[in-house]
Amino acid sequence: MKPLRPLRALEWVGERDGFLRIVDQTRLPQEIRYLQLDNVEAVREAIVQMRLRGAPAIGVAAAFGVVLGMRQARYQTAADALAHLERIVNLLRGSRPTAVNLHHALERMYRVGRAIITAADFRPLVNDLVPRLLAEAKAIWDEDRLMCRTLAAHGAALIQNGMGILTHCNTGALAASDYGTALGVLFTAHEQGRRFTVYACETRPLWQGARLTTLELKLRGLECVLLCDNAAGWFMRQGKIQLVLVGADRIAANGDTANKVGTYSLAALARVHGIPFYVAAPSTTFDLSTPDGSAIPIEQRSAQEVTQPFGLTMAPEGIRVENPAFDVTPADWITGIITERGLVQPVNPSTITACLGLTCRSEKSIP
Amino acid sequence: MKPLRPLRALEWVGERDGFLRIVDQTRLPQEIRYLQLDNVEAVREAIVQMRLRGAPAIGVAAAFGVVLGMRQARYQTAADALAHLERIVNLLRGSRPTAVNLHHALERMYRVGRAIITAADFRPLVNDLVPRLLAEAKAIWDEDRLMCRTLAAHGAALIQNGMGILTHCNTGALAASDYGTALGVLFTAHEQGRRFTVYACETRPLWQGARLTTLELKLRGLECVLLCDNAAGWFMRQGKIQLVLVGADRIAANGDTANKVGTYSLAALARVHGIPFYVAAPSTTFDLSTPDGSAIPIEQRSAQEVTQPFGLTMAPEGIRVENPAFDVTPADWITGIITERGLVQPVNPSTITACLGLTCRSEKSIP
Repeated sequence: MKPLRPLRALEWVGERDGFLRIVDQTRLPQEIRYLQLDNVEAVREAIVQMRLRGAPAIGVAAAFGVVLGMRQARYQTAADALAHLERIVNLLRGSRPTAVNLHHALERMYRVGRAIITAADFRPLVNDLVPRLLAEAKAIWDEDRLMCRTLAAHGAALIQNGMGILTHCNTGALAASDYGTALGVLFTAHEQGRRFTVYACETRPLWQGARLTTLELKLRGLECVLLCDNAAGWFMRQGKIQLVLVGADRIAANGDTANKVGTYSLAALARVHGIPFYVAAPSTTFDLSTPDGSAIPIEQRSAQEVTQPFGLTMAPEGIRVENPAFDVTPADWITGIITERGLVQPVNPSTITACLGLTCRSEKSIP
Repeated sequence: MKPLRPLRALEWVGERDGFLRIVDQTRLPQEIRYLQLDNVEAVREAIVQMRLRGAPAIGVAAAFGVVLGMRQARYQTAADALAHLERIVNLLRGSRPTAVNLHHALERMYRVGRAIITAADFRPLVNDLVPRLLAEAKAIWDEDRLMCRTLAAHGAALIQNGMGILTHCNTGALAASDYGTALGVLFTAHEQGRRFTVYACETRPLWQGARLTTLELKLRGLECVLLCDNAAGWFMRQGKIQLVLVGADRIAANGDTANKVGTYSLAALARVHGIPFYVAAPSTTFDLSTPDGSAIPIEQRSAQEVTQPFGLTMAPEGIRVENPAFDVTPADWITGIITERGLVQPVNPSTITACLGLTCRSEKSIP
């Protein structure tokens, strides 16, 4: 499996009449299948079915989804156009509830669209609507790519030769626009010549660690060991892990961090073993309007993901299942948060505000 | 799926010319397939492939394996017979390294066999060898059945109405001769009229929790919720778990306990959340000749169990995998150990000796 180019979660191909190209992550690692999404329903479906996942990536994809949706839409009046925009934004907003990057991106797209639509002289502007939305989506994409590199540069200093670094889920090129958040930190440290071992938790129920993270590490030549999720504590006990490094889907104002289910347990285990626990996340993952983790909505996914993984039958019929897709790690269990604006350490409301300013307060103008 | 009789891991059918009947646990929950094992190689294969698993069950199966092996064997002299016995015992002993019940059972069988073989008047005794071995294996089986009930009765008092009880792997009728160890405790409490919710961790890589534990709980009408292993900590955090109850594969003299991988993490998480953590295990699971957990051999199983679960491809080719089948929980993280001889609590060398005496010291006479 040698792709001609590095795996990339998503890419806008073409201009105003272009499309969003994504790798169908549900097919990895067996097959690198690209999908061309040219309508908003397809973008939503890809996010819901997790063909595309990762908080930064779904934010960017949703922005392009708005472009596609408005390109499809037919309207005669400003009121019509605004109704379409709201429908499209809400369609995408409902795709997954936990990652806030999605909401931030949609908020930006909505404001740009609304400003054009509601301008006094609607008629001359309307032909400009899709290009302007596309420009905004590309700006979000560009910022996300830049974020990956800047964040990685800030975090790489934490990685030392010989470390064992435990990670969870996938936070690489498949989760963002460039080479990721937590994995981007590791890629940068590796490019800088440091050598270390990455322990990848397989990340049930959807195996993002086993299917995606090991693939990205392998393609870039990093040393990697795959573990079942439940073995993580035992490897900490044996002194094999010197750092835990994960991504995030939403970080509340106090630093409580929602991330892929299993993160909370890893943070607790790191704490028991005295191992530093870092989160790598761009500023778009912060939600300063959510005071703490208790207010973060946790997506509950289907029982079938657990009982019938990829078509196998792994439990008797009718068994009750709890399948939260995320959990919330309390701020005081997090050693530091690596952002593109620097390191938040220790993690508390004032260090977060100092690092980010107030720019990440979600104002929620979408009706 | 309504079996005509309760699931039973194993059963000796017939007398001297009988066979060992087991449920092929690799086929559950889709299919209840019984296998008739009439030779020692088949018994070994079933243990290695985990068609039969669970520390008490494999001890009993190995005892019958010795019967089958000596029934197959042809010998003319006492030296020949002893060589056969040693070969058979060692063949079975090598099937799985961690669970000590296997070693205890083989030690018993070996001593009985050797005593007969090496008696001065070998010829008259030799016709009696297989019946005497069969009687010993049946005694081990009977004791294991009695153990299940007695242990369960001791433990049931810990279970209160309304509790959420987290368990790992399978410790029920499929893991022992009667209705199990940790699950037996829950079955008894349920029979006594208490109502509670069992949270079953799915137990990667072989899904014993998802495939076997939920099945047993369902068949007996207990309320059950299936979780991915990595969600356990999050459910503790949410106050859903009041007790963790697991089995064991080997308990060292100081109380350090080897059990299915993931147990160590659950014990650490229970500790962080102030939740009592109990082990349920018969006296045959203690190994007083092993001073502490560092001396317990940990079976490493194949990478394919992790990367290619039940034929799926869940990781790229050639990825390095660590797949320990067990881990070791330190004694001081264990609130108590429920045995058929009573409750060991707190867990330390003197409470263990007080409860068990010295009867569980393995003397290792097998060459």
